[in-house]
Amino acid sequence: MTAGRFITFEGIDGSGKSTQARLLADALRAEGRDVVLTREPGGSPGADEIRRLVLEGDPDRWSAETEILLFTAARRDHLERLIEPSLAAGRTVICDRFADSTRMYQGLSRGNLRDKVDKLHALMIGREPDLTLLIDMDPATGLARARGRQGHEERFEDFGLDLQTRMRDGFLALAAEFPARVRVIDGNAPVDTVAAAVRDTLAEALA
Amino acid sequence: MTAGRFITFEGIDGSGKSTQARLLADALRAEGRDVVLTREPGGSPGADEIRRLVLEGDPDRWSAETEILLFTAARRDHLERLIEPSLAAGRTVICDRFADSTRMYQGLSRGNLRDKVDKLHALMIGREPDLTLLIDMDPATGLARARGRQGHEERFEDFGLDLQTRMRDGFLALAAEFPARVRVIDGNAPVDTVAAAVRDTLAEALA
Ligand SMILES: Nc1ncnc2c1ncn2[C@@H]1O[C@H](COP(=O)(O)OP(=O)(O)O)[C@@H](O)[C@H]1O
Ligand SMILES: Nc1ncnc2c1ncn2[C@@H]1O[C@H](COP(=O)(O)OP(=O)(O)O)[C@@H](O)[C@H]1O
Ligand SMILES: [Mg+2]
Ligand SMILES: [Mg+2]
Repeated sequence: MTAGRFITFEGIDGSGKSTQARLLADALRAEGRDVVLTREPGGSPGADEIRRLVLEGDPDRWSAETEILLFTAARRDHLERLIEPSLAAGRTVICDRFADSTRMYQGLSRGNLRDKVDKLHALMIGREPDLTLLIDMDPATGLARARGRQGHEERFEDFGLDLQTRMRDGFLALAAEFPARVRVIDGNAPVDTVAAAVRDTLAEALA
Repeated sequence: MTAGRFITFEGIDGSGKSTQARLLADALRAEGRDVVLTREPGGSPGADEIRRLVLEGDPDRWSAETEILLFTAARRDHLERLIEPSLAAGRTVICDRFADSTRMYQGLSRGNLRDKVDKLHALMIGREPDLTLLIDMDPATGLARARGRQGHEERFEDFGLDLQTRMRDGFLALAAEFPARVRVIDGNAPVDTVAAAVRDTLAEALA
């Protein structure tokens, strides 16, 4: 049995990650592939409980460092209980956000903690995706989309245009930092056009 | 204002840490010192919630690595919200268990994770106590005491004599590793004798 591929979607809020992750899972399943579609934060029962603890309550409830530790604990659980066993069984794992989101949101939003995030990842997680699809888009459009979506009240989603812009720039810098792993997809096009670009990039990158 | 002293109690379960931490706090308060008595896991509202998440449910619910991350998150919260501000205000902080307990219980009990525990501590906690009082005692007596105490059903307390013995040896090795910080107190004596030894050691070590 060959190990399955681990594919993640990243990008700013409202860029279309969840939409595209779902469409890609559907497309691969239609080809007969065995796909696990999951997301972070959360993705396993334990990780979901940790996620609830992080997102609930006052935004200043946890310091940036404590939050990074909690997200890393949740990721470790998700990785051990769902991602690694699925990959070992030869399944394709598609994950809506993963460690790059922590590198950006926790690494850049409240002080510069990117170095700590990276060291913590290397120490306690280790695993990188085989391919990361970065859905790039105009920050204002992303924000408008996210605000228009149902149930957008989660804590990280309303820091406004300034954060969206910094995160977008950060994600593009990340793609430049890891060009083999992170591929940029233009998310400003209609859903089907983006979905086709995702499938083409996947075919080319994992050929 | 001079910074306060940070004193921790460590040792196997039932060795008398909580008893001696309380007696030392009383003695220092009687001398007019401003003392904060706290304990781990927990010690701040956020850390207590994380603690509940860790201790609740099936013992195999979290892997050793996830558990280490959760305890470190709780410790970071406790440190930022209670310990550091108290020390900065010149108060004496007495803490019933701290990072050495993680080095022992999480570092040694399920595989050898001591190196990961140490690196994680260096990265995300950094702070060491000014003085650690290690209450050393016979593992079987400690176990009998812990089992005789009310409310001993917490998860880490019933792995039996084998674990108690390994932890005792581990704590003694730790004292040998950090002789300036960790002082060994004989906990087999009556409570008042142990309390007097604690006060003498404190006076000598922090002179
Ligand atoms: N290419 C697109 N064009 C227009 N609207 C889109 C597009 N992709 C997604 N949307 C809509 O934008 C909103 C945010 O998309 P979503 O997939 O939830 O983004 P994300 O998961 O990145 O936050 C949703 O209401 C979704 O239906
Ligand atoms: N020196 C001692 N001699 C006899 N019993 C003791 C002594 N110190 C503590 N105890 C009792 O042993 C039990 C465990 O003590 P405790 O302080 O809770 O230990 P720990 O916090 O290290 O687990 C308690 O019932 C306590 O009253
Ligand atoms: Mg989404
Ligand atoms: Mg105790």
